Amino acid sequence: MIDFNAEYAKYKEIFELSLEEFYGKLDCKPQILSDSLKYSLKLGGKRIRPVIMFAVGELIGAEHDKLVNYAVALELIHTYSLIHDDLPAMDNDDFRRGKPSNHKVFGEGNAILAGDGLLNTAYSVLFGECFNGSEYVSAAKYICDCAGINGMIAGQSADLLHEKDADSDEEVLNFIYENKTAKLIMAAAVTPSILCGGKYYSELKTFGSDLGHLFQITDDILDVEGSFESLGKSIGKDGSEGKYTSVHIYGLDASKLKADVLVDKCVRLLEGFDGDTEFLRELVYFVRQRIH
Amino acid sequence: MIDFNAEYAKYKEIFELSLEEFYGKLDCKPQILSDSLKYSLKLGGKRIRPVIMFAVGELIGAEHDKLVNYAVALELIHTYSLIHDDLPAMDNDDFRRGKPSNHKVFGEGNAILAGDGLLNTAYSVLFGECFNGSEYVSAAKYICDCAGINGMIAGQSADLLHEKDADSDEEVLNFIYENKTAKLIMAAAVTPSILCGGKYYSELKTFGSDLGHLFQITDDILDVEGSFESLGKSIGKDGSEGKYTSVHIYGLDASKLKADVLVDKCVRLLEGFDGDTEFLRELVYFVRQRIH
Repeated sequence: MIDFNAEYAKYKEIFELSLEEFYGKLDCKPQILSDSLKYSLKLGGKRIRPVIMFAVGELIGAEHDKLVNYAVALELIHTYSLIHDDLPAMDNDDFRRGKPSNHKVFGEGNAILAGDGLLNTAYSVLFGECFNGSEYVSAAKYICDCAGINGMIAGQSADLLHEKDADSDEEVLNFIYENKTAKLIMAAAVTPSILCGGKYYSELKTFGSDLGHLFQITDDILDVEGSFESLGKSIGKDGSEGKYTSVHIYGLDASKLKADVLVDKCVRLLEGFDGDTEFLRELVYFVRQRIH
Repeated sequence: MIDFNAEYAKYKEIFELSLEEFYGKLDCKPQILSDSLKYSLKLGGKRIRPVIMFAVGELIGAEHDKLVNYAVALELIHTYSLIHDDLPAMDNDDFRRGKPSNHKVFGEGNAILAGDGLLNTAYSVLFGECFNGSEYVSAAKYICDCAGINGMIAGQSADLLHEKDADSDEEVLNFIYENKTAKLIMAAAVTPSILCGGKYYSELKTFGSDLGHLFQITDDILDVEGSFESLGKSIGKDGSEGKYTSVHIYGLDASKLKADVLVDKCVRLLEGFDGDTEFLRELVYFVRQRIH
């Protein structure tokens, strides 16, 4: 049996080293732009998307070196989305990972530009990969579309639209979870497949989607049951603002049941893979049981 | 002698038709996201970047069909930058092309997402081109880098930083003009070259840069001498807000002189090209003499 925490830490550490090397590419003028780009990236977090990408890559035989820039780009995209999401006109969050949000440190204008800058830099990195051949282009475009107007941005827009909409239903909630949260997790799981000629493509798409939904439902549960100390962000905010979440729509117990069903789905999916899926299985349990 | 206005209108019309065809790709849910993306694109404007790209392409023999998606992507990037620039935390402009700015119609949160969505869609379009070969990748990456943290975003950041800085000097001003304005015009001029194996690459880079600086200086002059009716945006705003512009630093007459020097540089550069450069020469005069 593997030591899950040690394995997770290993993947994370490998990613942090790649990111460390990458920071030099964020040197730019004026200094405040460079500082604001790095500030949010350096806030850390679980780095779950890179960890998923690396672990899936190891499972299906995608070379690690091929994945590194895709993992960096995906984390840049995720980070830009948090910066813009935290803005007063969006979720209005003053804290992120226990530290002041980007706009609280650098001001709103700079935070908007920091988000734009991270998004643009992610694609500059991915265009750099596109010289390597058409599967590299496919992987880059897949990530881009997961992040776009039929992906994450659509989810953010629906989230904003239904923010205080007590009549929101299951369909709306599913749309938001699928797009706002699951799409980037799908991108993490599917990228190694595209770079391996489509190996386990549809299985990994389903796995990423289910894991993404699970991640969001456990987020909702944590918003009710978690603490500021462990989460590093404001608690009970979604509930108190009347934002519908799975807890709001189904109740706490039914949300937990839904999470467990998704855990089962993910675990059964992994059983269909050749190779050692123990780490990914433990990752599914970790997402369900996490306290942050 | 050509009829410049008719030629310009022809290029613009060709672009508008391509954009018209493209709107379908901006259909997405929720409706407000789709509407806000299209709203700003449909506000129109001079479409000067696509016109430059098409005219340069015709001059150096880059096939029009190769350029269309690059022109669309560049206009999406330009449009996203205007939406984010108009936000209260940035330039705080309520009007754009005589109509309410995106955030005045759709709210700030949606305007942030509309900008993000246009930027992301631009790169989805360009990744689509990358399947065609390495020169297509190079052209896409060039546009991306012109728009990025060592390009337009750096210029916007410096602009924000020095907004009310009476001590700003020529170096700061040049940095902002080069990055905020000239880089995307350079991208328009250089893209056809990259798609033609680098034909006139350095000449077109210089031409794009000089034309971009000229464009920004005439913008500053128009901010003093123009009218809301012809410009469709607030007038005298830069001056009244103590924002340094070329007019602020050099005075009105010296700015006009600088503009004329840039006109000469551009026109002399064009003399070094084989082929018919009359339209581009007239375009340079148009940028100098425009009233909007």
